Amino acid sequence: MKKIKRALISLSNKENLYKLLLVLKKNKIQIISSGGTYKKIKKLKFECTEISKYTGMPEILDGRVKTLHPKIYGGILSKRNNKLHKKDLLNNNFLEIDLVIVNFYPIEKTLSLTANHAKIIENIDIGGPTLVRAAAKNYKDVTIITGINQYDNLIKELNINKGSTSLNFRQKMSEEAFSETAYYDSLISNYFNKFNNNSFPKKKTIHTRLVEKLRYGENPHQESAIYSLKKNPEFKQIHGKKLSYNNYNDIFSALSITKSFPKNIGTAIIKHANPCGVSIKKNKLNSYNSALACDPVSAYGGIIACNYKVSKKLSLKLNKIFFEVIIANGFEKDSLKMLKKKKNLRLIDSSNIAIPNSYNYISNFNSTLIQSPDIKKFNKKNFIIVSKKKPNTEQLKNLIFAFNICRHTKSNAIVIANKESTLGIGSGQPNRIDSCKIAIEKMKKFKLNKFDNSVAASDAFFPFIDGIEKLVQAGISAIVQPYGSIRDKEIIKFANKTGTVLLFSKTRHFKH
Amino acid sequence: MKKIKRALISLSNKENLYKLLLVLKKNKIQIISSGGTYKKIKKLKFECTEISKYTGMPEILDGRVKTLHPKIYGGILSKRNNKLHKKDLLNNNFLEIDLVIVNFYPIEKTLSLTANHAKIIENIDIGGPTLVRAAAKNYKDVTIITGINQYDNLIKELNINKGSTSLNFRQKMSEEAFSETAYYDSLISNYFNKFNNNSFPKKKTIHTRLVEKLRYGENPHQESAIYSLKKNPEFKQIHGKKLSYNNYNDIFSALSITKSFPKNIGTAIIKHANPCGVSIKKNKLNSYNSALACDPVSAYGGIIACNYKVSKKLSLKLNKIFFEVIIANGFEKDSLKMLKKKKNLRLIDSSNIAIPNSYNYISNFNSTLIQSPDIKKFNKKNFIIVSKKKPNTEQLKNLIFAFNICRHTKSNAIVIANKESTLGIGSGQPNRIDSCKIAIEKMKKFKLNKFDNSVAASDAFFPFIDGIEKLVQAGISAIVQPYGSIRDKEIIKFANKTGTVLLFSKTRHFKH
Repeated sequence: MKKIKRALISLSNKENLYKLLLVLKKNKIQIISSGGTYKKIKKLKFECTEISKYTGMPEILDGRVKTLHPKIYGGILSKRNNKLHKKDLLNNNFLEIDLVIVNFYPIEKTLSLTANHAKIIENIDIGGPTLVRAAAKNYKDVTIITGINQYDNLIKELNINKGSTSLNFRQKMSEEAFSETAYYDSLISNYFNKFNNNSFPKKKTIHTRLVEKLRYGENPHQESAIYSLKKNPEFKQIHGKKLSYNNYNDIFSALSITKSFPKNIGTAIIKHANPCGVSIKKNKLNSYNSALACDPVSAYGGIIACNYKVSKKLSLKLNKIFFEVIIANGFEKDSLKMLKKKKNLRLIDSSNIAIPNSYNYISNFNSTLIQSPDIKKFNKKNFIIVSKKKPNTEQLKNLIFAFNICRHTKSNAIVIANKESTLGIGSGQPNRIDSCKIAIEKMKKFKLNKFDNSVAASDAFFPFIDGIEKLVQAGISAIVQPYGSIRDKEIIKFANKTGTVLLFSKTRHFKH
Repeated sequence: MKKIKRALISLSNKENLYKLLLVLKKNKIQIISSGGTYKKIKKLKFECTEISKYTGMPEILDGRVKTLHPKIYGGILSKRNNKLHKKDLLNNNFLEIDLVIVNFYPIEKTLSLTANHAKIIENIDIGGPTLVRAAAKNYKDVTIITGINQYDNLIKELNINKGSTSLNFRQKMSEEAFSETAYYDSLISNYFNKFNNNSFPKKKTIHTRLVEKLRYGENPHQESAIYSLKKNPEFKQIHGKKLSYNNYNDIFSALSITKSFPKNIGTAIIKHANPCGVSIKKNKLNSYNSALACDPVSAYGGIIACNYKVSKKLSLKLNKIFFEVIIANGFEKDSLKMLKKKKNLRLIDSSNIAIPNSYNYISNFNSTLIQSPDIKKFNKKNFIIVSKKKPNTEQLKNLIFAFNICRHTKSNAIVIANKESTLGIGSGQPNRIDSCKIAIEKMKKFKLNKFDNSVAASDAFFPFIDGIEKLVQAGISAIVQPYGSIRDKEIIKFANKTGTVLLFSKTRHFKH
């Protein structure tokens, strides 16, 4: 237990101060403060010593130097049970400061509101983090408060312990203090990296805020949590059970697909992070029906994303299938009422979500792989028609659609499509021919003979003819694949021999 | 351009100082310094003002308060083109400090060497980061140097510009300075989280060091880099082309498997982050042969991990197949000579790598999912024998082996095994029955009729009988799966009817 005699308060955000001051007064704690905080405290009619009076040094440089004084830091950093430290304070006429309450210039808010470099720089707090770090380092003797959300706990602590704080409490506050300073400097550091166009700095920090602890990770024996890089996460759950780790993972896969489509069209059904049915159609019911038709069996227990507002009519259909999560750009009122009848069904409004430009990272074995996302839009120029037979407009549209779905499907990926809807998806195989077989089998299983003029896309080049052969035998009329195989010429020859349209793509789309 | 008149130097690591001092002297730059750095500079026979003399304030609290003085911070933080700031300095008899050279107490080294809490706390630098942050904020006027590796650039800059530095240089140094402070506090913050057993703090920072920029990401149009959470990455590439993003990703998958095995046994071949053949055998050649035999076609272009030292004999075999990467716990001298003949083949020594306990993270849509790894070892108690027929020792061993490989295979995963070697792996399907079919097909394709007594494992429960049925029809004698389906009873009944051994597992092993 440490009795608190003296507190230093320096706040950028001065909310909720009154109740705190009441408790400090009750416990006869002397208050030192500066600038705006001093004025606020006086306005609230509490006693307070101005820091410049306390140190004997006036505030200079428009407030850039206020608290950086040995009288302050001697008071914060001295070890109370160290005789030498005690003597140092005595000799210099310094007094112990036992409680430090600081919040920083709001750099996060500034960064979200302006791109004005000078303004951002001016909002980098120097004194604040120093006070916090010093007090946090000396938490054995000093209490550090860095957030308004900690006031209630401090008040409780002081009330219970009659003006003292416990070591446990101080240790916890110290942990949160370093978490604040690390987060604060990571914001600044990443801003400077961006400002200097440096995607891969030598030392990189990633700062992120807890959204919530999840019940468990991919499996029940794993712990997990979801964090957000933004202060206000864009995911808006409007109904249902808490989202799970696997839900989130599937939601990311689903939105990667639907948010890459033009506004107001497109449906994707996801199972185990892979698409199991995708369709673009202006008529939303048709879009849903086609996405589901690709593999209505596997869709069971999956998640679905609609890049449009869900109508009552569609809700009737959605309610017939067991989906874990429905994501949509809004739900019509009647629709929501209907869907909410299923207590466990998770509903997410994705209206405000766009595909971010930010680099993604993944960690394993103490390493982190960071990469820019595979979101580059490609147009006709990305493709070279290499077969004698040229694609018609419909085929070209479907080839681009299928190839676009490949990039969201785990490699090796083969996507068969027709009318901008998937007919068969082969994913996650060590061998491209196996993915072809799976895609063809799915197509045949659920489409029977209705696949005239269907097209296929491959995420990377075919190393042999066999894959293309299988697709052509199954009735595929046009194929797109990246070039690069030593057998490219043979493959072109085969396409010409069979009257197949063949396009080579300049981009590859591995995904793992 | 900013002429430098006065420098403040405060160093924990005092290496390579001499050449820097020479240049400062040449440019008539006054030096202020404290403690050990002051002594070192004097010892090297350069002029230097001690900081306590400069400020008129003695060093107190065993050096805890040395530089925290308004004369220092006024000198660093004043805007040179601001009349008010100029006046403030003049009134207080403060002088401008134009260059700050600081490196911190080595907290990273301390954390790697000791778990002594008091020692770690003592090594938290307060003065250093404050000097750095202040100088970095005021980079328009001040040069901040935070690392010994920056000395040469500073010397070059001062030489070229005759004692001045350019804005460009100061801006770059400022960026690196904030990267240092963010990294430093992230180290401390994560230490405190660990000390307080807090896996999921409200604000989390991840600090990581650039190992190298990679040629590209998963695809050529994506940028990427690999970072390490450790100062010295454990991956030791001993030969071959630069590792690619996909190589690293596959290496993580491979090591997750082989490093989970007992020492000195076990081979895994990986393709697109999924196992395509795994075997545990005491005889290393047999282990390799069996891993390859699972799918010798798909192994082409894959990566292989040997949890043992590679012999010359094995190298002869390895050289016959095209692998992108060979990972091993060392290579015999002859073996290395032979493998190195392939110029492009990447060789990695994994002797010093162990599966870390650290949580893994993955990001998307501005969110980060963090979870503990799926590395819990399970023993017989994890399994319940639910069939009338009991497994024999061999079956039990193989069931546990197969189930263990499931956790490294993307869901839905089915693994068929025999003699602790995989015979067929079905991965990445939206439907469990599809994974069964794939696994069975692989087994039949490459094993013909030699699969008596084979067993199968499923990463999650079978929702219907159909999957188990397919496996039994294919000759599988024993099956393990997690329980939890509403049809568990039917499945047990089916096992009993067909004389199949059936085990239920208490754990599930989804992986995406």
